[in-house]
Amino acid sequence: MLGLQSVTPPEWVDQVQQNLEEVLIDHAHCEKKAAGTAMNLLFAYVRPAEICQPLSEIVVEELEHFNQVLELLQRRGIRYRKLKPSTYGRDLHELIRHGEPQRAVDRLLVAGLIEARSCERFGLLRQHLADEELVRFYDDLFESEARHHSTYLRLASAFMDQDHVKQRWRELAGREAEIIATGSGPVRMHSPATATGMDA
Amino acid sequence: MLGLQSVTPPEWVDQVQQNLEEVLIDHAHCEKKAAGTAMNLLFAYVRPAEICQPLSEIVVEELEHFNQVLELLQRRGIRYRKLKPSTYGRDLHELIRHGEPQRAVDRLLVAGLIEARSCERFGLLRQHLADEELVRFYDDLFESEARHHSTYLRLASAFMDQDHVKQRWRELAGREAEIIATGSGPVRMHSPATATGMDA
Repeated sequence: MLGLQSVTPPEWVDQVQQNLEEVLIDHAHCEKKAAGTAMNLLFAYVRPAEICQPLSEIVVEELEHFNQVLELLQRRGIRYRKLKPSTYGRDLHELIRHGEPQRAVDRLLVAGLIEARSCERFGLLRQHLADEELVRFYDDLFESEARHHSTYLRLASAFMDQDHVKQRWRELAGREAEIIATGSGPVRMHSPATATGMDA
Repeated sequence: MLGLQSVTPPEWVDQVQQNLEEVLIDHAHCEKKAAGTAMNLLFAYVRPAEICQPLSEIVVEELEHFNQVLELLQRRGIRYRKLKPSTYGRDLHELIRHGEPQRAVDRLLVAGLIEARSCERFGLLRQHLADEELVRFYDDLFESEARHHSTYLRLASAFMDQDHVKQRWRELAGREAEIIATGSGPVRMHSPATATGMDA
């Protein structure tokens, strides 16, 4: 359904359980960054005008999730703070081509890939976490990440024909599968299952 | 109420009436920029955590206004497009001090000043425009701009003591009054009454 080319191994969930506080803080930052990505696209493109409303809706929903994660952190006495991010987002952004409309298509598809991977991982969390509040929370978020993924794919087709968009999605999804498998750094929402956090 | 140090002369409303389409497009960009300003602050400051929720609310409300202006443009057959902005925002941003927490205070107060000036001008538009739909629209927006102005002032007090914030507001409001009076360029939501658009 999500068009990803790899499946997150179950070890990642074990790592999240062992580093739950940091992953929840990282999750807050991820939601904020997702809102920022949609906002940046809103500033970058004035045409076609029909992209403005869906991008605005994504900003609003991601900020709502951001505040939900902040409330969750507060309830649990976890301090929201700056955190070293995973290399995932940066590595994906390096795949974006220069020159329009290719750049617009790639920015939208990379945003869609991040939503798709988040969705896949929220699906794992709702299935395997022992914490009931978190299971309900990730169940709620699952559906909207899937919807955002579809929205980004649809918006990309406003810039180039659908065949090109589909082919480019497959290329980028292949690279995404490599990036999510080979990243380094601490355990995060988008870290590989082999991250160093295993020893934490 | 708004703590501004000058009053917009009635000539500005005449100029808006003569350049209505461009001012409405500019208004769409202003709402988007207002959302972007609050989003940038959300990315710049992780502490104090209590600023996140109010800043998120401002982003959401400004994007709602942005989409309302876009719908208005569409109903009137006006094409939303890139537009040369007034020099107002850029000139105000040059007043922001370096070094924290002064920078945080100034960013919040400049954002508050822009909201205050927008509020004052929406008040003029609702009072003097002949177009009933626009009168209702600016009447609706007036209240939320006033509220955002108060929110930014309150958030500034989370970074430095209130006496400093009040004194700095007066300084910046003095500079804002100069900037709004002496700007150049076409007629915009934040252009001076003497802008070249008078001859349009």
